[in-house]
Amino acid sequence: MTPTMLAKPVSYQRLVLVQRPAQHMQESDFRLETCEFSHCLPQHVLLKNHYLSIDPYMRGRMNAAKSYAAPQELGQTMLGATVGQIIESADPAWPVGTWVAGMGGWSEYSYLTSAGLRRIDPELLPLSAYLGVVGMPGMTAWYGVHQILQAQAGQTLLVSASAGAVGSVVGQLAKHLGCRVIGIAGGTEKCQYLQEQLGFDLALDYKAANFRASLDAALAPGVDLIFENVGGEVFDLSLRHLNPYARIALCGLISAYDGQTYAMQNLAAILSMRARLQGFIITEHLEYWPQGLAELAQLVTSGRLKYKETVSQGLASAPAALAGLLSGKNFGKQLVQL
Amino acid sequence: MTPTMLAKPVSYQRLVLVQRPAQHMQESDFRLETCEFSHCLPQHVLLKNHYLSIDPYMRGRMNAAKSYAAPQELGQTMLGATVGQIIESADPAWPVGTWVAGMGGWSEYSYLTSAGLRRIDPELLPLSAYLGVVGMPGMTAWYGVHQILQAQAGQTLLVSASAGAVGSVVGQLAKHLGCRVIGIAGGTEKCQYLQEQLGFDLALDYKAANFRASLDAALAPGVDLIFENVGGEVFDLSLRHLNPYARIALCGLISAYDGQTYAMQNLAAILSMRARLQGFIITEHLEYWPQGLAELAQLVTSGRLKYKETVSQGLASAPAALAGLLSGKNFGKQLVQL
Repeated sequence: MTPTMLAKPVSYQRLVLVQRPAQHMQESDFRLETCEFSHCLPQHVLLKNHYLSIDPYMRGRMNAAKSYAAPQELGQTMLGATVGQIIESADPAWPVGTWVAGMGGWSEYSYLTSAGLRRIDPELLPLSAYLGVVGMPGMTAWYGVHQILQAQAGQTLLVSASAGAVGSVVGQLAKHLGCRVIGIAGGTEKCQYLQEQLGFDLALDYKAANFRASLDAALAPGVDLIFENVGGEVFDLSLRHLNPYARIALCGLISAYDGQTYAMQNLAAILSMRARLQGFIITEHLEYWPQGLAELAQLVTSGRLKYKETVSQGLASAPAALAGLLSGKNFGKQLVQL
Repeated sequence: MTPTMLAKPVSYQRLVLVQRPAQHMQESDFRLETCEFSHCLPQHVLLKNHYLSIDPYMRGRMNAAKSYAAPQELGQTMLGATVGQIIESADPAWPVGTWVAGMGGWSEYSYLTSAGLRRIDPELLPLSAYLGVVGMPGMTAWYGVHQILQAQAGQTLLVSASAGAVGSVVGQLAKHLGCRVIGIAGGTEKCQYLQEQLGFDLALDYKAANFRASLDAALAPGVDLIFENVGGEVFDLSLRHLNPYARIALCGLISAYDGQTYAMQNLAAILSMRARLQGFIITEHLEYWPQGLAELAQLVTSGRLKYKETVSQGLASAPAALAGLLSGKNFGKQLVQL
């Protein structure tokens, strides 16, 4: 018989958003709180979270402005994806002991409706992978490369933040399809990894003194596809090198999330090159997730899709982990281990 | 028997581009030349041009920079569409007397390959209409509304330069489809025409003192479709009001053609609203022209599609007509009658 409950402590901790950033986010925008356990409502479970996912979109939710989703409410648990184990259940379809991914938020334990859960297999892949390469970031890359860019052999693809959780998958998937892949990342260590370990044709260090000249030289033959995670001046410069009928998947503008908006000078290239710029949010394309996640898992287990993680320890480290992600300190997927 | 030649004078005049503008174009960028007639090469005809078409794209061709087409060569007849009658022919398929549209350029007479000609019927519609509402501008509107925006009943469509040759057709086609149509134009006369004669739901005068507030108020419920002809600050402001999954047909950026590039502040709306921005050039979609032109002609003859023209007289007036078009002096299609 399935146990109806696993052991838990007398209380747990969570992080709530207490103020919205004026410009740069700060750790003091959050407050650590101790909570008492309550009980599972019908069709709900209690999840013990093992990893929190730290993602760029979280910064946008800290603002009051309406975007594609409502802002994070003040005084409530900061939202976010987690992986963990069900330790109490009021839904027979989701028994105690089941490993799942869900939107547990910045909390050691979470009461969640079972409708938002996704089963994961910790024997197939490490738990944390289900928040990265075979989770939302991996799906974002998969959907962007296959459905929006429709990348094809022989095309040149440019991807920014290419050592990150999304960008590193974008580049590898595009290589599998036969593209010439140019990545942008910060620092020689990341760039070496992209070229030597992930097989990128070229990785350009945006912190290097000669970066602009290197970018111009690399893109001089023209770029067919851009998977844009960063925005700002580098994206703007890239537009000058679009080939006719170029496609741009606009996935993120992380350079603007925690700072000044950048004014784009080269939008006319979209017209003159008859290009297409398409914004997208992967959670609106859930119908592709089963296929995409299965393909990504198969690529990882067969060794054809590599990934890196930056893991900080303990719930209290989450705000600093997010701030680090926004300034490019992470190498691969940023996680918090609880 | 078809005559093989119609009467012509001993010489004719043309305008050649003699220098590229530093910033603003000037009439002195062109020189009037007198030419001797030569003879038709095989598969060529001699066209007596009756109207020249004056179009925004011409300003781009005056620059040296590569765009979607090669620059206009210095010392050669300025390019452009014309309508006229074949007065000599070396192609039996295009007999003398035939009325055609072609790329005759800024010239009273033009030797043209028959491959680029399109038959027109001056008994169905006035000659000049084949350069506007049932020519390239009309097709641009038709393709943008139907193929790129895929406008549907109940959607709100914003169109800039909406009293121009393209914009006025965009708005009327969208009204036929059941859209709420908001136009932007310069001056009360144009705006009254759009609302009272063309059935636009609203026309906003960008020269009015309260224009920004009016635009914000009109777009506050959200805009689903933008047909963009102008670019610049007004386009930028419009982006703040995009509805989710908005589509933008990027047809022109006339505000930048003869002046400074404007830096776009609100591109992030493309991401947050999961919008699509698509540049296009109608001459790359010739497969749609027979269908589109037939539909446009039917709408005009049945009185459901109205148009205005601004006609200047004589070849020498062409540079001033183009300069006027670039500053919004035209009302409807700008033409030169020869």
